[in-house]
Amino acid sequence: MTVRNFKLILEYDGTNFSGWQTQSEGLRTIQNHLEEKLERIFKKKVHCQASGRTDSGVHALGQVVHFKADTDIKPSLIQKALNSFLDRDLSVVTVQEVPLDFHAQKNVKDKTYRYTILNRAYPSALWRDRAYFYPHKLNLSAMRKKAKDLKGTHDFKPFQSASQRSRIKNTVRTVKNLSIVKEGDLVHISITADGFLYKMVRNITGALISTGNGRLQPKTAPSHGLCLMSVRY
Amino acid sequence: MTVRNFKLILEYDGTNFSGWQTQSEGLRTIQNHLEEKLERIFKKKVHCQASGRTDSGVHALGQVVHFKADTDIKPSLIQKALNSFLDRDLSVVTVQEVPLDFHAQKNVKDKTYRYTILNRAYPSALWRDRAYFYPHKLNLSAMRKKAKDLKGTHDFKPFQSASQRSRIKNTVRTVKNLSIVKEGDLVHISITADGFLYKMVRNITGALISTGNGRLQPKTAPSHGLCLMSVRY
Repeated sequence: MTVRNFKLILEYDGTNFSGWQTQSEGLRTIQNHLEEKLERIFKKKVHCQASGRTDSGVHALGQVVHFKADTDIKPSLIQKALNSFLDRDLSVVTVQEVPLDFHAQKNVKDKTYRYTILNRAYPSALWRDRAYFYPHKLNLSAMRKKAKDLKGTHDFKPFQSASQRSRIKNTVRTVKNLSIVKEGDLVHISITADGFLYKMVRNITGALISTGNGRLQPKTAPSHGLCLMSVRY
Repeated sequence: MTVRNFKLILEYDGTNFSGWQTQSEGLRTIQNHLEEKLERIFKKKVHCQASGRTDSGVHALGQVVHFKADTDIKPSLIQKALNSFLDRDLSVVTVQEVPLDFHAQKNVKDKTYRYTILNRAYPSALWRDRAYFYPHKLNLSAMRKKAKDLKGTHDFKPFQSASQRSRIKNTVRTVKNLSIVKEGDLVHISITADGFLYKMVRNITGALISTGNGRLQPKTAPSHGLCLMSVRY
């Protein structure tokens, strides 16, 4: 057998996960759950590297992960086995073999996140864990104007979570796209960037909501409205 | 105070409810949950009448209910109070006062249900409780041809649940619309009819899937793909 490198695309409902990874023992994380099933398939421990962590409550349609394994099992069979072993809130969209030097985090060209706001007077039973219920008025054209200012290469330090501020030196990022699309009562904010600071999308969303409502105080939008859509290499 | 009649539109995620109503004691039903909160608002028992029952697992974006109460509380305030008291998987879209003779079940002109199929090779974490995962090939044009045959006024007895067959005499219904729309990997089957026999949408869906896959055996499609979209009066 030969050591091979596999790239996985994952879809997950973050509601009942304590994020991709956590320092605390015994919590249900996406990484733990995935690695447990991979160990069952390969009969040995497997380490998974994601494109980046996602917080508790954050969803994904296109999280990317790589892992190495000494195996002859075909990618399509790994996918089938995983989808039959995994709990239903984590699913595997694709498995493909990639060159040994492919790294899910280091090789990222850009990522796209989508933040969804439910903007109407009453809450939604079906969107309760997928969209942030915001019942106040939002001026979308003011939000789009602000979004335009945020596009491009800037120091995004003001949009970084305070707890992490001291740990990252270079806080300059390039936002390649920032669109605001209305779909019925939903407002989708899509952000593509070459990298994201901790809680950057949720802080940008908070700032855009402040702009849209005319209030002064920006705040971090809650995690359950956020979804990692895709990662490009 | 005067007795007033109120019409509610409800949205619910049917996953954790034992349907609209059940004979068994102690189960969490939509009716029980709603009536409990209405009793809290009006300080007396309130009976809710729905446009029709929905089974365990079935969702709604537009279930209609009426109830009578001797009250001066404004409809908008009833809605706000309910939305703050109800669990997050049940929400109130509108509350309006209607004439005393309005009856949510007897006055129905037609109802629209939507059945959603996830038609791709691998399951979906985010759609797991909202769409029926069907990984086999579906020939949509064959399904649309069959759907066309089902439109109009027919005896829908073959599409009625066996357990209820003896209880309903008139099994003739008029299907006013039956459309099949593809949206990415999802296939939405929307059916509007003047009335529905028990499990009629799920049995029609099962038959359409059989047609689309070329198998002979029809079966009842599972409840979690079904959503009551709207009721017309």
